[in-house]
Amino acid sequence: MTKTEPATAPLLAALRGERPSRRPIWIMRQAGRYLPEYRAVRERASFHELCTTPELACEVTLQPLRRWDLDAGIIFSDILTPLAPMGAEFDFSQGAPRLAAPLRDERELGRLRVVDPRDELGFVAEAIRMVRRERPQTPLIGFAGAPLTLAAYLVEGGGSQDFHHFKTLLYSRPELIVKLLDTLTDQVALHLAMQVEAGCAAIQVFDSWASILHPGDYRRFALPPLRRLMDRLAPLGAPRILFSKGGRGNLATLLAAGADCLSLDWTCGLADAAAEAPGSVLQGNLDPVVLFGSSSELVCRTQAVCRAGDRAAGHVFNLGHGILPQTSPDAVSVLVETVHAHRQEA
Amino acid sequence: MTKTEPATAPLLAALRGERPSRRPIWIMRQAGRYLPEYRAVRERASFHELCTTPELACEVTLQPLRRWDLDAGIIFSDILTPLAPMGAEFDFSQGAPRLAAPLRDERELGRLRVVDPRDELGFVAEAIRMVRRERPQTPLIGFAGAPLTLAAYLVEGGGSQDFHHFKTLLYSRPELIVKLLDTLTDQVALHLAMQVEAGCAAIQVFDSWASILHPGDYRRFALPPLRRLMDRLAPLGAPRILFSKGGRGNLATLLAAGADCLSLDWTCGLADAAAEAPGSVLQGNLDPVVLFGSSSELVCRTQAVCRAGDRAAGHVFNLGHGILPQTSPDAVSVLVETVHAHRQEA
Repeated sequence: MTKTEPATAPLLAALRGERPSRRPIWIMRQAGRYLPEYRAVRERASFHELCTTPELACEVTLQPLRRWDLDAGIIFSDILTPLAPMGAEFDFSQGAPRLAAPLRDERELGRLRVVDPRDELGFVAEAIRMVRRERPQTPLIGFAGAPLTLAAYLVEGGGSQDFHHFKTLLYSRPELIVKLLDTLTDQVALHLAMQVEAGCAAIQVFDSWASILHPGDYRRFALPPLRRLMDRLAPLGAPRILFSKGGRGNLATLLAAGADCLSLDWTCGLADAAAEAPGSVLQGNLDPVVLFGSSSELVCRTQAVCRAGDRAAGHVFNLGHGILPQTSPDAVSVLVETVHAHRQEA
Repeated sequence: MTKTEPATAPLLAALRGERPSRRPIWIMRQAGRYLPEYRAVRERASFHELCTTPELACEVTLQPLRRWDLDAGIIFSDILTPLAPMGAEFDFSQGAPRLAAPLRDERELGRLRVVDPRDELGFVAEAIRMVRRERPQTPLIGFAGAPLTLAAYLVEGGGSQDFHHFKTLLYSRPELIVKLLDTLTDQVALHLAMQVEAGCAAIQVFDSWASILHPGDYRRFALPPLRRLMDRLAPLGAPRILFSKGGRGNLATLLAAGADCLSLDWTCGLADAAAEAPGSVLQGNLDPVVLFGSSSELVCRTQAVCRAGDRAAGHVFNLGHGILPQTSPDAVSVLVETVHAHRQEA
């Protein structure tokens, strides 16, 4: 498929470490419940139906792009989507994702198979193609969970306070975790490649649970798969963004993974990260709750993030984590305007 | 009250930055549900009754000290205990603490009063005196929540995923948060002073939610109260431990608070912290889930934490967070033996 978004698109320029005409901004979970038009679609379709029906996924992906002059779309999907055809389909009907039978021993984990996502997850590629036809001028981002985050979901069977099951396995049968991470790396690589082939101009890998481990364990277990994943994706030419939540202690490890851009949450000062990682392209990192504060605080803190981003080799503005469902769209308008009004000092 | 624990007690020596005869160890939440004898007491009394009945609080405080040669006791109480006489009593009957009416505006917050804890919280002091009589040879630790953590609890009315209410207030009426933190600092100082007067040899301040803020906000809002708190406690002579969860990005700020010892969780490498904070006494920081791993992993990782602690000016072994209810007491035996067997190289 021919990519028709211009190579000079601010998002792509920033991800190459250039200084585009304006600071690019997109928002994690920008297609979501804070939008009345999204809630209207959700009234007639479940989250699962939205993810698996290309027309619906396309529609909600486009919604925030119609409201605001955002610098990227992100295909509507879930970080756990790659797992379904492997034999681990999560249930989203109760809000938080749950796996009926968590995988907790060698036999259960051994059943996971690497499969061609184009067979059973073709709806993701189809949704991407539909969005590209509708909005050829806007770069579209594809995504998936990072191997470690997916592994933790599989063993816990959902979210967790203490990741007791996953880490018990890590601390007793580390070789099983290494094997699981390898299998997941292969599947995630195929899933992201499918998205790039379908038209995504960039991809983001979400290591939402990077901070559950000791930094030494994160380096030992999570880094080799991340590196292999980034190496596998490099030839595709789409810039690779690596998101980490609470990744402050893992900065050196995250850099070593070889992504084109690191996306950080607000518990890591962006200016500090730019100083510790000279030459790096950074994404982030406004606290989503700032959108609930006064307009003056919102403007002031948004400008501060932009100025911190000036110190990086390239900066893509984003929130530090997904936008909250209670957010007012008016606050998003202020945010987008403030970011686009920012001018980097020469 | 005369303190009868020897000044050469390993805990106190380590907290002074000396090298005691053995590596001291105590365990956060060591009086807790993982102990059958604790569960037996809880069958006939609620958590609230345990906290407020000196005989019961004394009994469960002593339980882990009877089983293991631990280097400190910690009085059975809760980090939220100081709030009750201020007019904000949390309900623990549903497991997680809940405040019937969270304090979310100026009027509600304005009602909080600093009170003499000896009037309404005398049961804490009485429990401490009872433990001291029973175990004069073992240093006893008193504690409370840090002002920021208590403030977040008050505004949220309990725990939270995103601290949306607390941070909305911070980002719209920061002066109210500053005032709230000031009031809480006064109350916490009185509460900790009462515990030292009753016989505690050291105190620990829990900033369990230090990592919800941007490091710049943590410095701006949390540091001045912490510093004032530490200054107020200094003349009492009891070493002051400051615990922070996820505090990796706040290390410099935590150091600036002026505590005698920083207690870190496992998301911060102890060796890295020792390098970044030369001359500091550190406490921590084994992942509590390591106690579920194989014995060889438990021993190996415990030794690694001890060796990392060797690089600090002083080291008190602890878990990075509270011990989990499902933990086997046998694993604790291995842990305590391994720590006490450690010999620091000269």
